[in-house]
Amino acid sequence: MPLPFIRRNVASMVGYVPGEQPQDRRYIKLNTNENPYPPSPRVLDAVRAATTADLRLYPDPLADALRDRAATVYGLQRDNILVGNGSDELLGLIVRACVGPGDRVVFPYPTYSLYDTLVAVQEGDVVHVPYPADFCLPEELRKVRGRLTFVCHPNSPSGTPAPLEALRALAREAAGVLVVDEAYVDFAEYTALPLLHEFQNVIVLRTFSKSFSLAGMRVGLAFGAPEMIKELLKLKDSYNVSRLSIAAATAALEDYGWMQENVARIRRTRSDLIRGLQERAFAVLPSASNFVLARRPGESQESRYLQLKRRGILVRYFPVPELRDALRITVGTDEEIGALLRALEDIAPATP
Amino acid sequence: MPLPFIRRNVASMVGYVPGEQPQDRRYIKLNTNENPYPPSPRVLDAVRAATTADLRLYPDPLADALRDRAATVYGLQRDNILVGNGSDELLGLIVRACVGPGDRVVFPYPTYSLYDTLVAVQEGDVVHVPYPADFCLPEELRKVRGRLTFVCHPNSPSGTPAPLEALRALAREAAGVLVVDEAYVDFAEYTALPLLHEFQNVIVLRTFSKSFSLAGMRVGLAFGAPEMIKELLKLKDSYNVSRLSIAAATAALEDYGWMQENVARIRRTRSDLIRGLQERAFAVLPSASNFVLARRPGESQESRYLQLKRRGILVRYFPVPELRDALRITVGTDEEIGALLRALEDIAPATP
Repeated sequence: MPLPFIRRNVASMVGYVPGEQPQDRRYIKLNTNENPYPPSPRVLDAVRAATTADLRLYPDPLADALRDRAATVYGLQRDNILVGNGSDELLGLIVRACVGPGDRVVFPYPTYSLYDTLVAVQEGDVVHVPYPADFCLPEELRKVRGRLTFVCHPNSPSGTPAPLEALRALAREAAGVLVVDEAYVDFAEYTALPLLHEFQNVIVLRTFSKSFSLAGMRVGLAFGAPEMIKELLKLKDSYNVSRLSIAAATAALEDYGWMQENVARIRRTRSDLIRGLQERAFAVLPSASNFVLARRPGESQESRYLQLKRRGILVRYFPVPELRDALRITVGTDEEIGALLRALEDIAPATP
Repeated sequence: MPLPFIRRNVASMVGYVPGEQPQDRRYIKLNTNENPYPPSPRVLDAVRAATTADLRLYPDPLADALRDRAATVYGLQRDNILVGNGSDELLGLIVRACVGPGDRVVFPYPTYSLYDTLVAVQEGDVVHVPYPADFCLPEELRKVRGRLTFVCHPNSPSGTPAPLEALRALAREAAGVLVVDEAYVDFAEYTALPLLHEFQNVIVLRTFSKSFSLAGMRVGLAFGAPEMIKELLKLKDSYNVSRLSIAAATAALEDYGWMQENVARIRRTRSDLIRGLQERAFAVLPSASNFVLARRPGESQESRYLQLKRRGILVRYFPVPELRDALRITVGTDEEIGALLRALEDIAPATP
């Protein structure tokens, strides 16, 4: 029986289900797109240096040290930048700032399913514009005018990028705000950041969880027009990012080369992974991220996912109709990907 | 001009204004109720031990290690507990779970002003029930039936406790959820935790920011019925608390005695502070927290606040009609409170 004092839309919600984070044993973890390489030693040093009696004090509410560093790195100003408790928090702030009951939110589908959850909490109306089989950005997206349009670039779970010209056209024609979720963009060829200099209604999101190997520290950045950032600031918790997370992310930006070397390594392994999967009869779209979507069109991959798990290898299986024939596989180290490819050979073909 | 795609209620909001956290110089900081004593050395050790390459991995989404430790310490079960990015995040989750447009939220006033901000975002209706001059819990609170009733126990900025019997009556008669915000309760004589065993509609909030000296780490706990915690879980970000924050809070609970010793010290200094303020012609209510509200009825304290700041001492001044004649002063070390009391002697009486 639902609790009487819980809002109806919340009581009927399922909530976002994250990928498994089993605490019982060590898996080869290729399910939540973590970086297989450690963060920069300078990050660990910075965190240790900040681990002092000063933890008794609140952090800087705006994390200006991090904003200033990010402004330099990304060619923006401090007031273009908002620091979040992961980019998930930033997505929530954006939805709460723009979406009330009945307001329309548009995005291509399938994509990061948290967008659905966040809009449901606000009682907004979601319009899914289906991606075609090749995951090219659907033209129809420009026709459905919403308060908010999300494009995940590159997209999860497909790994495919969105053309910059298409994003520009969307920003120009959008009735509301275009959010380009660039969680994985450091693994891609280009960013949508230039659009920030052309449009007031574009927000670009970044995270330290993927390319910077800091999923455990929870830091994301939102880039946008100062007027927009100001509105989002009203909604954020006063002290939303801890002292150590601010220290970690600032140091990570100060060792940008470390991130780039890991990204180069992951991109090389990504090529090997795609080739290996294709040799094993999977259809794989070109990926601009640190994961690939491996499909056997028409053949459910649930049992393959379970068999891999039994062998200590976690990949992501999405139990929704559009993705039942697919596995999303994070690009791990060469050794991890070698183990995955060998395991896939051993596993008997799924019963159709 | 407001941005066209921002919700009207958000565009017209001011947003919560936290106490100053100046980054420029070291003040005697008596303005945001931080603990003057450092966290346990075991906390710092635990954080350093967790500062490894594993920061590349997401944290446990539910922070079960911390939940289990808290369950033991507070005599509850794991599923009674939700871990938040500070208790501010937990307040936000509760409001989003229970309050939609037009839903009524009740609390005595003045209190923690974030409650107003959070309800405004949800387009709920706030009913302020004024505290009397002695900050006793107003009887009328029981008559205004809301979706949500907040009681800050002990209350900020008054420092006064709410009688357990009054809280029990509120829980019994409340139409919706009673939230007892116990951010400061470790400095008080009693907790509302026993009510959790009597009522399904009570949530008790705790934080590591005050008694545990971990404001910089952002960890709070919500205690409630499992069905209630389940609903809140749907709304929280998947990975809302960092690996290092989980490690810090878990270790803090493992060295509970450290916290208790600091609390005892602060309570002793609190008595000295209250006496000193009374000797200097301030009216001070008995405080059950780590701060006191010092009043000169009818006399604005803004200039005294500014003069203290010029001397390097930060206290909290609230520019609202009900509190213009008051300063909220955090209990610091004996040395800090000595410096404050000396400074107050030096400062000329404010012009009326």
